Amino acid sequence: MSPPDFSRRLTALREEMRREGLDAFLVPAGNRFGGEFVAPSDQRLAWLSGFTGSAGEIAATMDSAAVCVDSRYSVQARQQVDAAAFRVLDAPAGSVEGWLAESLPGGAAIGFDPWLYTRSQIGKKRNALEAAGLSLRTAENLVDRIWTGRPEAPSQPAVSYPVSFAGESRESKLETMARRIGSAGADAALLARPESVAWLLNIRGSDVPRIPIIQAYAILHASGRAELFADQRKFSAELAAELGSGVRVRPIGELGQALRSLGGPALADPETVPEWIFRRLEEVGNGIVPVRDPCIAAKAIRNSVEASGARSAQLRDGAAVARFLAWLHAEAASSRTTELDAISKLEECRRGTGKLMDLSFDTIAASGPNGAVVHYRADASSNRTLRPGDLFLVDSGGQYLDGTTDITRTVAIGEPSDEHRKCYTRVMMGLIDLSRANWPRGCVGRDLDPIARYHLWLEGRDYGHGTGHGVGHYLGVHEGPQRISRNSEETLLPGMMVSIEPGYYREGEFGIRLENLVIVEQAPPNGNAGSGMLRFETLTYAPFDATLIDAEELSGSQKSWLNRYHADVLAKVGPLLDGPDAAWLERACTPI
Amino acid sequence: MSPPDFSRRLTALREEMRREGLDAFLVPAGNRFGGEFVAPSDQRLAWLSGFTGSAGEIAATMDSAAVCVDSRYSVQARQQVDAAAFRVLDAPAGSVEGWLAESLPGGAAIGFDPWLYTRSQIGKKRNALEAAGLSLRTAENLVDRIWTGRPEAPSQPAVSYPVSFAGESRESKLETMARRIGSAGADAALLARPESVAWLLNIRGSDVPRIPIIQAYAILHASGRAELFADQRKFSAELAAELGSGVRVRPIGELGQALRSLGGPALADPETVPEWIFRRLEEVGNGIVPVRDPCIAAKAIRNSVEASGARSAQLRDGAAVARFLAWLHAEAASSRTTELDAISKLEECRRGTGKLMDLSFDTIAASGPNGAVVHYRADASSNRTLRPGDLFLVDSGGQYLDGTTDITRTVAIGEPSDEHRKCYTRVMMGLIDLSRANWPRGCVGRDLDPIARYHLWLEGRDYGHGTGHGVGHYLGVHEGPQRISRNSEETLLPGMMVSIEPGYYREGEFGIRLENLVIVEQAPPNGNAGSGMLRFETLTYAPFDATLIDAEELSGSQKSWLNRYHADVLAKVGPLLDGPDAAWLERACTPI
Repeated sequence: MSPPDFSRRLTALREEMRREGLDAFLVPAGNRFGGEFVAPSDQRLAWLSGFTGSAGEIAATMDSAAVCVDSRYSVQARQQVDAAAFRVLDAPAGSVEGWLAESLPGGAAIGFDPWLYTRSQIGKKRNALEAAGLSLRTAENLVDRIWTGRPEAPSQPAVSYPVSFAGESRESKLETMARRIGSAGADAALLARPESVAWLLNIRGSDVPRIPIIQAYAILHASGRAELFADQRKFSAELAAELGSGVRVRPIGELGQALRSLGGPALADPETVPEWIFRRLEEVGNGIVPVRDPCIAAKAIRNSVEASGARSAQLRDGAAVARFLAWLHAEAASSRTTELDAISKLEECRRGTGKLMDLSFDTIAASGPNGAVVHYRADASSNRTLRPGDLFLVDSGGQYLDGTTDITRTVAIGEPSDEHRKCYTRVMMGLIDLSRANWPRGCVGRDLDPIARYHLWLEGRDYGHGTGHGVGHYLGVHEGPQRISRNSEETLLPGMMVSIEPGYYREGEFGIRLENLVIVEQAPPNGNAGSGMLRFETLTYAPFDATLIDAEELSGSQKSWLNRYHADVLAKVGPLLDGPDAAWLERACTPI
Repeated sequence: MSPPDFSRRLTALREEMRREGLDAFLVPAGNRFGGEFVAPSDQRLAWLSGFTGSAGEIAATMDSAAVCVDSRYSVQARQQVDAAAFRVLDAPAGSVEGWLAESLPGGAAIGFDPWLYTRSQIGKKRNALEAAGLSLRTAENLVDRIWTGRPEAPSQPAVSYPVSFAGESRESKLETMARRIGSAGADAALLARPESVAWLLNIRGSDVPRIPIIQAYAILHASGRAELFADQRKFSAELAAELGSGVRVRPIGELGQALRSLGGPALADPETVPEWIFRRLEEVGNGIVPVRDPCIAAKAIRNSVEASGARSAQLRDGAAVARFLAWLHAEAASSRTTELDAISKLEECRRGTGKLMDLSFDTIAASGPNGAVVHYRADASSNRTLRPGDLFLVDSGGQYLDGTTDITRTVAIGEPSDEHRKCYTRVMMGLIDLSRANWPRGCVGRDLDPIARYHLWLEGRDYGHGTGHGVGHYLGVHEGPQRISRNSEETLLPGMMVSIEPGYYREGEFGIRLENLVIVEQAPPNGNAGSGMLRFETLTYAPFDATLIDAEELSGSQKSWLNRYHADVLAKVGPLLDGPDAAWLERACTPI
């Protein structure tokens, strides 16, 4: 197979643009359903340009083209695209809108596929482009017209997600959500996120890698009746019967017609619902209630069955990680183990649980300087052999029926340097302080973010990413709305799961990140704040590398937390290991 | 003198309301110039109701009246007003607007004095009242019409504030501010805060207690010329000459005329400029640039002369506080010292410096259960004798030509209980952690607030006030815009002074507060954050009560901070003391 001719593809695209009277066309990395993973049949941006990152956007004019990427993909995009055909823009400084304003004369028309952008994305884009005298115009997807040999759309079946894992029946969820739609003053809600649909109907699927969703839209009526718009072939007669008469599965092509037959105002979340749907609703003219998809808040709160599932999943996964770390401890000294070897071994350990459905994301296994690349993915060209003196950062997770996991450990290969220990200790202190934090009800993610950074800040150090993200329940490993970040105004509520993952990165040298998953719970009432305080229950149990901790730096209470944590690891994960793995764990959990 | 007949005053007010066709009238505690201190001639609310608190608002209808106060004044207001005439509303739950909506029929007209409310205050009020079908109407001040025996307006002279204390000439400030007004697209700015005027023109005065301001408005033209609207008698020929020909002092009655003669858009800060001025500007019709008074940001940044003045003032004041604490240590054991005695003694120690111009606010000296009343002011009826076992909280400050101080110390009278020590230690940890914090440039007050609370939160404890407020330079002791608070989105910049004052209060038992003033500075570049980090320089030097600190609870680095702080206190303040005071200080500063 000869390599794809990207400039020919671009020429074909321009032919279609000319036919439509467009001066430019936009191609985003995403699909119709949001989310970070996209099926091969939706990888339009990669097909057109060769750039395979999970986020980015192409703008093509008649004589030039640009691909805009965030800092994660700055290097990769330049490696993958043909510099003669595409200019690479680095967001946020470089934007597609800014580039179009420079490249096009006033009055030019820019086409976009309204299925691939949400209302809120288009609103921001329109503001920026109109300020430059340019106009946005909906169009058919011109890439789809010229894409020869396009892969088949995903066709794996949908499956029922048992209430023994979900903790609440779909009937109960439908009733609660229908009531919320009514209280919001709407007759129906448009659900455009497959995670919402999966949660609401207790179904799962395999349409994209790493997230067990079915690509579908839904209309939930305030009556409690639901219409699901998806590839009907994915729904077996058995599943349809289980969904019952209140849930009708219809072809996605009938969505427009269904919107037209709505009799009253529709709830549509501008952050998640495509521009296409908003326009249809505006045409219908029954009114739009532009508030957040109500499933987003509801599914963020774990019920007791989900919470206990999460505890089991994390323990099982922690045992797999412990087996991996024991193997690594024994192997890495040989100077023959590579990052890719470690990735295989870790997946093997997870598969060994007999319960792994999928990884929850592509494992990040980054040694030495690769560790400083926050979203590093090892491949044949970057693959490093682990050597004494390296720090090795492994960020990974699994999808189990009872929960989604995400854990990062950084370990020293051989003897760590003083500088490694110094930095690791500060990151450890951040994880400890946030893990044991209590806070008054009402705090948002932003209020807690500095707690994990305080000890790094004291030494003039910091990390460029957020401190934690929400996690789905056998769904997306990055699933909000809750986060712990400078930018999060979302209140942390009991039952919300979130990661705590401070880090420290030194370009060209090493990276450190430590990550546990936790769940928000009520703190016992003791001080004057009474029952108004919340805290985290830690869910992840796997040892930290004590050789990287300078015990002198920790306060007494930080040390107690760590020793209690390791005692818990031993008590909870120890029984799941045997032989040399168990012996290694016992040593790894020795109090400091 | 017979006590005032408040119900007769209310009757007289209603007579005026009837004459004006108003169904209600509003009387705020404030004057035309904002700020927390008000001259006797402006204490309309106290004259009408008997309530003397610094904040609150009266709404009177034809048959009822309410005074709305915040939690500080909930008890005091009920003690001071006649319950037959006034209902007390507790904000934020109880609001004047809510009460009016309940008390009045739709269409009723509510009068207010547009000099006494800012544009932004009236905007919020109008939204709330119009939602209830009520309308707001400007009126003359009806209280002023009926106030017989009203005290004279303040008439103390304005004085020049030497550049040796101000660090920047008025010419230079006028030029910089004029340039900013021009860049904001305005021809002139309305300055409605006396603190802005005092800072800009390097003048001070004695119009209100505790803040050395002159009550004045100013118009600063983009040309650099300024018009000052104030009582001309306050300006001596000498001062007028010093101000020069670029600064014209005019009677306040000519402000309207001056606004009419503006030739272009005027900058007017909706948060500080009275509704009266906004309406005149709207009539003139040259356009309004509704942005923040540019002096507010400029005066918040200490220049090097101001910063060094602040250091001297705080040391001098710290020595006075140390003398007071030494006296307290010797006296309080006698069980004959009262809160009022302590207040007198502390003022005597400050006067002993020979440099005290005024206190910066009424001293809070609160023993035992009085300490839990956050804004407690001792008077003859509440005055307590200090007894062994009490905690004694003293929050006080002085006005010196070279700076404004504010310091809180809490000390044990006799032997403290374990509970006292436990709580004090947590508050101390908060002060230490925030004092030594570093943070990346760009953080706002809200980002740092949790750092002072973290160790209290860990024990389910919290305090209900902000963590710190800005401080003026020989101006207001509470002077923003910077704050450290859940509600502050203001970026902390090098040169800003702020208090750090965590606390803990147990109603009916005790209160603890510890307060130092600090100034933001650049942190030395060391970690990966480079020169992007900021930190605080501590300005306040006076010992903490080590008998209240459980050294075991502090981390090694917290202990080091405290021991270094006390060593600095001894080195800096020790030389200013002699005899037994010096000996006491040395004991008080013993390392823990």
